[in-house]
Amino acid sequence: MTSQDTPRIDAYAARDAGASLAPYDFEPNALGPHDVEIAITHCGICHSDLHLIDNDWQSSQYPLIPGHEIVGTVARKGPLVTHVDVGARVGVGWQCGSCLQCEWCERGDENLCSKIIETCVGRPGGFADRIRVDGRFAFSIPDALSSEVAAPLLCGGITVYSPLRQHARPQSRVGVIGIGGLGHLAIRFARAMGCEVTAFSSTAAKEEEARAHGAHRFVSSVDDAALKAQRESLDLIISTVNSQLNWKRYVSALRPDGVLSFVGALAEPVSIHTGMLMARRRSVTSSPIGGRFTMREMLTFAARHGIGAQVETLPMSDVNTALDRLRHNDVRYRFVLSRD
Amino acid sequence: MTSQDTPRIDAYAARDAGASLAPYDFEPNALGPHDVEIAITHCGICHSDLHLIDNDWQSSQYPLIPGHEIVGTVARKGPLVTHVDVGARVGVGWQCGSCLQCEWCERGDENLCSKIIETCVGRPGGFADRIRVDGRFAFSIPDALSSEVAAPLLCGGITVYSPLRQHARPQSRVGVIGIGGLGHLAIRFARAMGCEVTAFSSTAAKEEEARAHGAHRFVSSVDDAALKAQRESLDLIISTVNSQLNWKRYVSALRPDGVLSFVGALAEPVSIHTGMLMARRRSVTSSPIGGRFTMREMLTFAARHGIGAQVETLPMSDVNTALDRLRHNDVRYRFVLSRD
Repeated sequence: MTSQDTPRIDAYAARDAGASLAPYDFEPNALGPHDVEIAITHCGICHSDLHLIDNDWQSSQYPLIPGHEIVGTVARKGPLVTHVDVGARVGVGWQCGSCLQCEWCERGDENLCSKIIETCVGRPGGFADRIRVDGRFAFSIPDALSSEVAAPLLCGGITVYSPLRQHARPQSRVGVIGIGGLGHLAIRFARAMGCEVTAFSSTAAKEEEARAHGAHRFVSSVDDAALKAQRESLDLIISTVNSQLNWKRYVSALRPDGVLSFVGALAEPVSIHTGMLMARRRSVTSSPIGGRFTMREMLTFAARHGIGAQVETLPMSDVNTALDRLRHNDVRYRFVLSRD
Repeated sequence: MTSQDTPRIDAYAARDAGASLAPYDFEPNALGPHDVEIAITHCGICHSDLHLIDNDWQSSQYPLIPGHEIVGTVARKGPLVTHVDVGARVGVGWQCGSCLQCEWCERGDENLCSKIIETCVGRPGGFADRIRVDGRFAFSIPDALSSEVAAPLLCGGITVYSPLRQHARPQSRVGVIGIGGLGHLAIRFARAMGCEVTAFSSTAAKEEEARAHGAHRFVSSVDDAALKAQRESLDLIISTVNSQLNWKRYVSALRPDGVLSFVGALAEPVSIHTGMLMARRRSVTSSPIGGRFTMREMLTFAARHGIGAQVETLPMSDVNTALDRLRHNDVRYRFVLSRD
């Protein structure tokens, strides 16, 4: 290819662990036969981006270009890409590749593939004007969803949709711990699925917001007596927080066959009394994002129910402002960077 | 009723926490319309009996008559008992009653009923010549099973059968930790279900026994390198031990969607890294015995496959010898007291 065919990509990168992002440009890899090049219009900011910038997982490579809640339009595509045309609006989330031939890929659980390729881990992410990825992990965005509100669905949305899909029925009583980027989407999805939804938050002021998102009930996560009173009342609890709570209370809040799913990243292990699991056949679990058909299903479901993220949009050039504010949890509920 | 109708029951009871058992007789409650009186021929001894004798769960009442793996023949029955005749051979396990009208009872999960009645908790158990229980929790013993080998199925057997039934498919790779009263039955059931079975034990000498029960593979639970090598190899692990192990290794041994079920009673909580659950969508769970249809199904399955417990039978008058030896784990694999 000539340089005409592959103009350099303009991105924002951290040069070192914890550094502010600075403009950075690079020549993209050649466009493979299954690849699409996406002209990025929007990219959400996820807590994982902060972890990557800070090298919290000891795996970051610098310069590091974060961003994995990407929406844009197909600018080019390889000859084997048939499901989207140039100009189509597509989204890419945390995962942009897998082996596509193992047991998990074959059953549609590409998110469980041991050869998962992560969009902004060891390769350039979405804080950029363009990105080249395997088109098989670029998903059409339904017309009913604006790009801003769709972007956070691609990681935050699928993260909470998957455990709801797996463990909740429309009749379920669902608890959501933490009313932030993930939690507000969990409430919206669970409500749309027909569930009775209980929001748990340490911030009393979030009750009104939680109810606006669709919660039927609100419980203060710092009121131990209130937590204790939830005993055997919920079928599924999705924890979106990244700090340790009194998990015993939440296990106790599960009805028989109830499931506690930890989708918020916890640095320390949790302490679980197996006797409390045994007495009511409860489970503790977690799950990572979702496979390709689940992603498409989630987007279709979100479009049908008008579920998008509640976002604050900033120009991508203000990325450091957004990151700083996210570090202080100063956002309702997700930042989306825009290149419009 | 006259004393002719209700001869006193001859039992063995602990008078105080931790005491040896001594003969004890008492007048039984009136036989209710749904009740059966069972002339006991055999009663297994479970670790729970020791916990009850020792008041480990702070709920024991004395004099305490242990015993909840009961086989015998129906001696009398109330007018509403239609599923068994006098003279029929029946068994009773840990549970002998429930409300029979809650959500869990209605769906056949009587073991999850909050009003569960436990055979030897707050009422006289099976270390006795007779017992009166709700006939709806007395199960016909298939002809193919001798009373000795059937007795331990009624608690130990159902305890491991239930998680296998819930989580294993014939194609599953199943690990069993601990080759004792529960573990050897778990191996036998899993093998009969078509699974590939891996036995974990701290006792190298148990390899031969584990393979004789049906294990395809044997791993030393005290060889850390061997444990580490099991990474992502098992779909279900059933832990039957009552001591803490390096659970991180066992979680790591689970394949995607794998389940670690703790059916051995652990006094202390377990420490679980939720990131290890998330990465592979693993779960940690437990379950208590099984409901009535599961109990019948288990007995039918055991009969079809010739699965009974490996037992050592002693006369019921030697109950203290059996209890002492059980305290020292000196049994292969279950004691059964006989009144024959």
